[in-house]
Amino acid sequence: MSEDKKTIVVFSGDLDKAMAAMIIASGAAAMGNEVTLFFTFWGLNLLRRPEPVSVKKNFLEAMFGWMMPLGARRATLSKLHMGGMGTAMMKYVMKTKNVATPEALLHDAMEMGVKFIACSMSMDVMGIKPEELIDGVEIGGVATYLGSADDANVNLFI
Amino acid sequence: MSEDKKTIVVFSGDLDKAMAAMIIASGAAAMGNEVTLFFTFWGLNLLRRPEPVSVKKNFLEAMFGWMMPLGARRATLSKLHMGGMGTAMMKYVMKTKNVATPEALLHDAMEMGVKFIACSMSMDVMGIKPEELIDGVEIGGVATYLGSADDANVNLFI
Amino acid sequence: MSEDKKTIVVFSGDLDKAMAAMIIASGAAAMGNEVTLFFTFWGLNLLRRPEPVSVKKNFLEAMFGWMMPLGARRATLSKLHMGGMGTAMMKYVMKTKNVATPEALLHDAMEMGVKFIACSMSMDVMGIKPEELIDGVEIGGVATYLGSADDANVNLFI
Repeated sequence: MSEDKKTIVVFSGDLDKAMAAMIIASGAAAMGNEVTLFFTFWGLNLLRRPEPVSVKKNFLEAMFGWMMPLGARRATLSKLHMGGMGTAMMKYVMKTKNVATPEALLHDAMEMGVKFIACSMSMDVMGIKPEELIDGVEIGGVATYLGSADDANVNLFI
Repeated sequence: MSEDKKTIVVFSGDLDKAMAAMIIASGAAAMGNEVTLFFTFWGLNLLRRPEPVSVKKNFLEAMFGWMMPLGARRATLSKLHMGGMGTAMMKYVMKTKNVATPEALLHDAMEMGVKFIACSMSMDVMGIKPEELIDGVEIGGVATYLGSADDANVNLFI
Repeated sequence: MSEDKKTIVVFSGDLDKAMAAMIIASGAAAMGNEVTLFFTFWGLNLLRRPEPVSVKKNFLEAMFGWMMPLGARRATLSKLHMGGMGTAMMKYVMKTKNVATPEALLHDAMEMGVKFIACSMSMDVMGIKPEELIDGVEIGGVATYLGSADDANVNLFI
């Protein structure tokens, strides 16, 4: 085990939880840590390209794809979303406070060397294809995650 | 602390979160880890027998019991449940993709030696009696959990 | 890393999750651990004074303040809230079972030496001022959290 490795399972695709994950990840990377983010279930949506990608999907895969948000920009709050008003308000406030947008936080974390891994099993279940993910994302399974977690001294599930 | 112990607090009773917990637990057990799952609050519902069990309950305990799902088979998604349609869709997709059902994942984890502990305090608050739990579950308190967590190198709260 | 340090990120402001955090924190403190709770996002609401505090806020800060619960006493369940009925029922049951109220659990944890840190960035985004927080709370950033987590052997995100 190493003092300078951290992992986070990003299970949630909510705007607020994604922000918490990115802020912890970037903070740890800035302090010299090797950080691995493992995106699974709803968290996968944060990694989707903002524009629709033409891929072959069966009916249910297309349905899921259509029901779930395209990328971090479309993530919504876990609380107080209120049909979009709460989320818009939060984003507006973050802008006035000079807090980066969720997609900028994601991009910054990647720039700082945070490793992004998309869960292969969740991709399969949700019908998300590799071409639909933003650049710089690796694909891995639960063994990949557990290998990183074994080496880390902080492991969170968000 | 040991490299080969893991614990997960299973606080959530949601289908998706339960699946994530079981997949991580079984994966870790398959890699030779000693894994302890500590089921508390809504997570307890995953351990309830699928059929009603005749036990003495007071009015509020009976109310809680009636409002909460009986076992993993009745767990629902934390998102996109949509009055049952999203959950049914997810289950159908998982079936076509050969992903095990939540109750099978639970059973498999147990077969692989994952330890299941039900939180005694939550059982008391929610009025869940030992006879209502599936076989193979031990009952323990927060000290039991902390004892296991102290010995583990990965501890998650799901 | 030390066997006797624990940290919890209290992201959620839900009654049930706050209780889980406090019970684990107090249990660990009782077993001789140095425990640090880092309150961020909705979790910050648990630290607000129960009575309104007169501070200068801009319109959006005032809106947020008005929409979010004032302290642990007003926290609600993440599930089965049912317009207040489920939360009231849970609180009633906890009372009959001699489980402490959330605000008592918070107070007890503090008395036992659990360290309470409010996330400065979340305070800024949500417009919560130091005067609005209960006594005994320190203010810190993500680096403070990561410093504590690096030294701990159990780190949870709730």
